[in-house]
Amino acid sequence: MKDRTKIRFVLLKTSHPGNVGASARALKNMGFSELYLVDPSHYPHPEAVARASGADDILQNAIVVSSLREAIADCHLIFGTSSRDRSLPIPLLTPREFANLTNSSLQSGDKVAVLFGQERTGLTNEELAVCHYHLAIPCNPNYPSLNIAAAVQIIAYELRLSLYGENFHVDIGASDRVSAEDMERFYDHLEKTLISIKFLNPDNPRQMMRKLRRLFNRISLEQNEMNILRGILSALSKQN
Amino acid sequence: MKDRTKIRFVLLKTSHPGNVGASARALKNMGFSELYLVDPSHYPHPEAVARASGADDILQNAIVVSSLREAIADCHLIFGTSSRDRSLPIPLLTPREFANLTNSSLQSGDKVAVLFGQERTGLTNEELAVCHYHLAIPCNPNYPSLNIAAAVQIIAYELRLSLYGENFHVDIGASDRVSAEDMERFYDHLEKTLISIKFLNPDNPRQMMRKLRRLFNRISLEQNEMNILRGILSALSKQN
Repeated sequence: MKDRTKIRFVLLKTSHPGNVGASARALKNMGFSELYLVDPSHYPHPEAVARASGADDILQNAIVVSSLREAIADCHLIFGTSSRDRSLPIPLLTPREFANLTNSSLQSGDKVAVLFGQERTGLTNEELAVCHYHLAIPCNPNYPSLNIAAAVQIIAYELRLSLYGENFHVDIGASDRVSAEDMERFYDHLEKTLISIKFLNPDNPRQMMRKLRRLFNRISLEQNEMNILRGILSALSKQN
Repeated sequence: MKDRTKIRFVLLKTSHPGNVGASARALKNMGFSELYLVDPSHYPHPEAVARASGADDILQNAIVVSSLREAIADCHLIFGTSSRDRSLPIPLLTPREFANLTNSSLQSGDKVAVLFGQERTGLTNEELAVCHYHLAIPCNPNYPSLNIAAAVQIIAYELRLSLYGENFHVDIGASDRVSAEDMERFYDHLEKTLISIKFLNPDNPRQMMRKLRRLFNRISLEQNEMNILRGILSALSKQN
């Protein structure tokens, strides 16, 4: 089973409480809830609550521990987020690769943790050493340091897409589209009107109607829009 | 050519300067730089600089304008980021679909703008009415409101992956799109004409212009088509 309760986000030694709040919000936006804080400074703090916005439930349920070891004791697969080059590199994944791997792991019952290092330094080599994979967000090589909550947001976003798909497709009312027959009546009406206002010369039409057909066909008009356009043409007929 | 300088991020009426700084950082992290601010409150502000971290160059080069119209005047393809349901839906894209579409459009020379609405309310219906596409981030339906800088981060991230990573070509087959400024002139002309032929009652407009904007924005008009439409309106003016 895909079980999002089996995914833990671990923030290490955060120095700005605002970042903890923003991370909580990012998690809740993407449908996740399990937040661990390792030795945070200035916490709890009103700035965390303010930046959490409506996600203060995630904050209140956050588990505060004093060591990384406690935070990941019951986890099976550990990812460390980092933009730093390492002298001893471990396998490197993009967020998308991480998400697909995690999706598979959850189905086999693993508990997964994703670690985020202290704001200024990122994960230390010691912290990265407990990770099975190194997770790096593709970014501008001249300015690679993302805000920690921004990194949480991207990782959680990719995980959500992998677990749930991009599933909000609302196609624009295809059921209310105009029939080809109605389109032909519209084009007849349009052509007569353009001739009557002397825009179109029937002796030298210069493919004008073909160009207008191309334009209006591209819209896939809905019925109510067709009613508006026919209304405009009728208003014109009364003038002439 | 893939030209990231042809992508403009537009923040509308931001109320928290910290969010402007965080958005600037998110853009620079992903290798983008063009930031427009429409009527921001409390700006410039030290909180924006603090949250921008090393991206203060993006902040300093941000263009502050007083209206959305100015912000997008020279843009051809406008995306509006929003989580709200709309009574008049326009085509809805995921960030990934947006990124692939934008990638294709940049190669045909279009200038692209992505709009982000005010923090509490999001884009208004009027702001969304200038957009060709509605862009929505898949998220927890019970808590769908992302922080504005978090939304900027995800959109910029997907765009970076599409521009520099693996990408699927979505051909939209338009090479000669009309700018937003020209669209506004067209709508002005259209509205005056509809009033003059007594189709539109200025005392009771019944959202008619908004419906027509939605219709014509959906076409992504080319320049030669705009010339035809303006020609029709001019022919009408001579009649009345």
